[in-house]
Amino acid sequence: MNDEEETEPVVRWTVRAGSYHDSVVLMQLQRALAALPGVHDAGVVMATAANRDLLAASDLDAGAEAGPDDLLIVVKAETEDAAREALARVDALLRVRPGGEGGDAQEDRPRSLATALKQLPDARWVLISVPGRYAADVAEDALDHGRNVFLYSDNVPLDREVALKTKARDRGLLVLGPDCGTAVLGGVGFGFANRVRRGPIGLVGASGTGLQAVMSHIHHLGSGISQAIGTGGRDLSAEVGGITAEQSLDLLARDPETRVIVLLGKPPDQEVKDQLMARACSAEKPVVAYFLGAEVPLHEERIGNLWQVSTLDEVAELAVRLTEKAGMVQQETPTSGYVRGLFSGGTLAYEAVLGLRRFVVPIWTNFSTFRKLDDPLRSREHTVLDLGADEFTVGRLHPMIDQDLRLRRLRQEDADPEVGVILLDVVLGDGAHADPAGELAPVIAGARAEVVVVVIGTEDDPQGLAVQIETLERAGAHVFRTVRDALQWIELQVGELPELEKPPELPAVPLATVQAPVAAVNFGLESFQASLAAQGARVVQVDWRPPAGGNEKLASLLARMKRRG
Amino acid sequence: MNDEEETEPVVRWTVRAGSYHDSVVLMQLQRALAALPGVHDAGVVMATAANRDLLAASDLDAGAEAGPDDLLIVVKAETEDAAREALARVDALLRVRPGGEGGDAQEDRPRSLATALKQLPDARWVLISVPGRYAADVAEDALDHGRNVFLYSDNVPLDREVALKTKARDRGLLVLGPDCGTAVLGGVGFGFANRVRRGPIGLVGASGTGLQAVMSHIHHLGSGISQAIGTGGRDLSAEVGGITAEQSLDLLARDPETRVIVLLGKPPDQEVKDQLMARACSAEKPVVAYFLGAEVPLHEERIGNLWQVSTLDEVAELAVRLTEKAGMVQQETPTSGYVRGLFSGGTLAYEAVLGLRRFVVPIWTNFSTFRKLDDPLRSREHTVLDLGADEFTVGRLHPMIDQDLRLRRLRQEDADPEVGVILLDVVLGDGAHADPAGELAPVIAGARAEVVVVVIGTEDDPQGLAVQIETLERAGAHVFRTVRDALQWIELQVGELPELEKPPELPAVPLATVQAPVAAVNFGLESFQASLAAQGARVVQVDWRPPAGGNEKLASLLARMKRRG
Repeated sequence: MNDEEETEPVVRWTVRAGSYHDSVVLMQLQRALAALPGVHDAGVVMATAANRDLLAASDLDAGAEAGPDDLLIVVKAETEDAAREALARVDALLRVRPGGEGGDAQEDRPRSLATALKQLPDARWVLISVPGRYAADVAEDALDHGRNVFLYSDNVPLDREVALKTKARDRGLLVLGPDCGTAVLGGVGFGFANRVRRGPIGLVGASGTGLQAVMSHIHHLGSGISQAIGTGGRDLSAEVGGITAEQSLDLLARDPETRVIVLLGKPPDQEVKDQLMARACSAEKPVVAYFLGAEVPLHEERIGNLWQVSTLDEVAELAVRLTEKAGMVQQETPTSGYVRGLFSGGTLAYEAVLGLRRFVVPIWTNFSTFRKLDDPLRSREHTVLDLGADEFTVGRLHPMIDQDLRLRRLRQEDADPEVGVILLDVVLGDGAHADPAGELAPVIAGARAEVVVVVIGTEDDPQGLAVQIETLERAGAHVFRTVRDALQWIELQVGELPELEKPPELPAVPLATVQAPVAAVNFGLESFQASLAAQGARVVQVDWRPPAGGNEKLASLLARMKRRG
Repeated sequence: MNDEEETEPVVRWTVRAGSYHDSVVLMQLQRALAALPGVHDAGVVMATAANRDLLAASDLDAGAEAGPDDLLIVVKAETEDAAREALARVDALLRVRPGGEGGDAQEDRPRSLATALKQLPDARWVLISVPGRYAADVAEDALDHGRNVFLYSDNVPLDREVALKTKARDRGLLVLGPDCGTAVLGGVGFGFANRVRRGPIGLVGASGTGLQAVMSHIHHLGSGISQAIGTGGRDLSAEVGGITAEQSLDLLARDPETRVIVLLGKPPDQEVKDQLMARACSAEKPVVAYFLGAEVPLHEERIGNLWQVSTLDEVAELAVRLTEKAGMVQQETPTSGYVRGLFSGGTLAYEAVLGLRRFVVPIWTNFSTFRKLDDPLRSREHTVLDLGADEFTVGRLHPMIDQDLRLRRLRQEDADPEVGVILLDVVLGDGAHADPAGELAPVIAGARAEVVVVVIGTEDDPQGLAVQIETLERAGAHVFRTVRDALQWIELQVGELPELEKPPELPAVPLATVQAPVAAVNFGLESFQASLAAQGARVVQVDWRPPAGGNEKLASLLARMKRRG
């Protein structure tokens, strides 16, 4: 290789020791350096081991001596001169304020929370996105001023989180975070949040993008959200004990705007989970819970007003569906009688039992592997019958052809005052009865119980799908195309509430905390202030600087002095 | 109560001892009796204990002495006279032929299979719906004539089923049933069948209404079926060993019309299941299996070309989806490289790992509870990274705001020739980057690997959902709105096929067996003949009568004489 022909790029660096810089400033510095003439690439990082490895991965390997509290600035340039010129501009670029060119508006920025609150006394919220090592102190100050905290910062020590949340709980305040990326309160998005319709679904989540995925999906499905409350990822741990999640559940249970509650997070500590479940079950509104990756045992898929689902997409879909039926689930005694299934198709009967056992017990049947009736002629409690089973078809046509037996049984079940819902299938197609709906309709029309019918068929079937459905519906039946959909309807009619211990009362977080209009004080990322303002919230940006300008030694000296004083 | 004013209805009965009657005739008799003047209700049943209980449940309690082989006819009438007159008409009504008024067409009906086959020599199928105790003999005769059997009858002894199916398998013939309600062969429905579009999905099922529900749902989703082959409910038992199911899988694997195979039934015997799974995996087309009520372990949700699902509805939905991608799954080496996920949202990364582990191993991550990378800067095999994790964000903005790191990593992954798919999330909304797609697009456009993007957001988000999606798609990304949908796409690209033992070869059932035009001979229910004819198939109805007119003693005497002769 010939040095004269192939110009090797040069990598040069500089270090700014032990001082705080806003992340936005660092990003802007990196971009500005990379855009300079003759510069190929630039890296501006706090010199942690991980960050130095990242630089190396981009061929920005710096031999500089620097520690995790030092700012390391590396450029890769065409020539030695270009690199030197770029690095010479670092200090000037670092003085540029994150907001841009700097201006008059900044002159009157408060330097402390106390001053900010003088400007905006009704600010209920303090947003904090300063570096983690400073964030807990700012949060504590906010709580001491009786304000709620949205704590975006990460790297806050666990013991500080516990202390902050305990203090907040005792005072009826909320601490969302640390490491809380997302909230929508009173219609205003805090941190990262999607613009979604206001609506009846209230979210609580220990998972930021989980909340965003669910709120976006809810919006996409045509519904909307009342509140979305991020708790921070560690809230459901044994140490923190789900303090914020419990407060939020309690708040949403009282919030008249919220008709259905969603609870999201990684699988919690078992004791925390039990506590949250009890709290959720006492909500007197439907609650949909999703714990990532947790397999939901069949018998836990629904407990009273509480549903557990096993994928993120189901969360939004079920929540929206429940908003349509929320009234029913609020009833004190939602059980409206026993379910009796009278099926002509064995597989459909089997599917019905598999689905029903999620929310009613016991279920009796006339087929194997389930609780079997001694006498299939007499139903007990919840019963599902396959009328095509051998005992019903000796010398008799299959019930898909001859419905006589089913019509009689339908009247018999309807005469039982303990029966609330009668579930039938109607299987169309060649070979089947020419007009099953026509034969069923008069009996359904005269029935006291709710009649639910699953119709299996196509518009090309000789009976005519649309006509069959219309005939059944006109007779008053609730018609569905799949067993799953029929059971979802039934579930809302007859789901049973278990007896639950009432969870202990919490100091109430006032509803006003999450109601519009929103007013807030922002420490840290100015983009959060801009975003709140763009959404019509009043917000005051604090011109925050770390104690002693980020010099750790000086800061700890100051802190010691303060404690003594 | 006063007998003079309240007319008590009278219940009267008559018995026809030990003779065979067509079920349709019995149904018609019951209806005719119930319609007579002065008659309230009627029951016409073979006098089994269950049937007598059923009568009693309808207040048609008969004190008559009658056994299970006797026909019991009961009427409930206003007066003694009305009852007597009704019963006097029984014999005349019993002589009416099931088809209706009887006519000339019946004169030349063959009385045996041999004669029927002279009329319709190319009939490949024999439909049998005569009572179970006679059905096996008729079926055996059909096999001996080299014909396939659709055996609707139930109550066929298990040992006869095993013998029939073994004989059929050895000769490359099919026995569908006993107790097989449904088949669609060459576009013609046998027994109970819905009129559905012809299309690329072939069904095999040990569950009749299951087949009907799935075929109707497939039609509803806009797709169609090639064949639907019912096997009878006992086929998957240890005794029968899944003979018909295996033959059918083998047949559909060879059928060029069938691009995706569906296998349905109650959970099979374990050995039978293993056999079927091996057969399914050798099909070189996607197979969707659903065993009612069986919980599917996560690692079995997909094995190579075989998917197991856990609800009936999923069967049709997945099968239709797979038809769109069937070509890919047929490839000899479907693995097109490793998957690398570069997420800004931790929850989305977590969801991605949960979904991916269904079809690829091992997956490395930089977050807990999964296989953790020693060095998050270097991906291994399949890797999913949360770029918002602590090690990537010290002194750096969150990747939802600052994508610099992700852009670099995207280039790094793309440079790895072992990488096939790069999976990203783009989370829109307030607080996030103003144009993430715009920044990603040039890198995606230059990428060698397939890039898949999950976009979370709404059309009201400041970045503009539609614009973001369009920008990404124009750059060549495959864009989805949920992690689930993105993974479904990826699954079809990189799903790994395990090494499988080739199942033993079966005597091939010729493809012509299930191809149009259909010609058949029908024993039993005339409605099945009418239905086949209405669908354009050629069919000959046999004027079948039980041996010795249904007199059991005489029949067994005749059989003994025959054996001796």
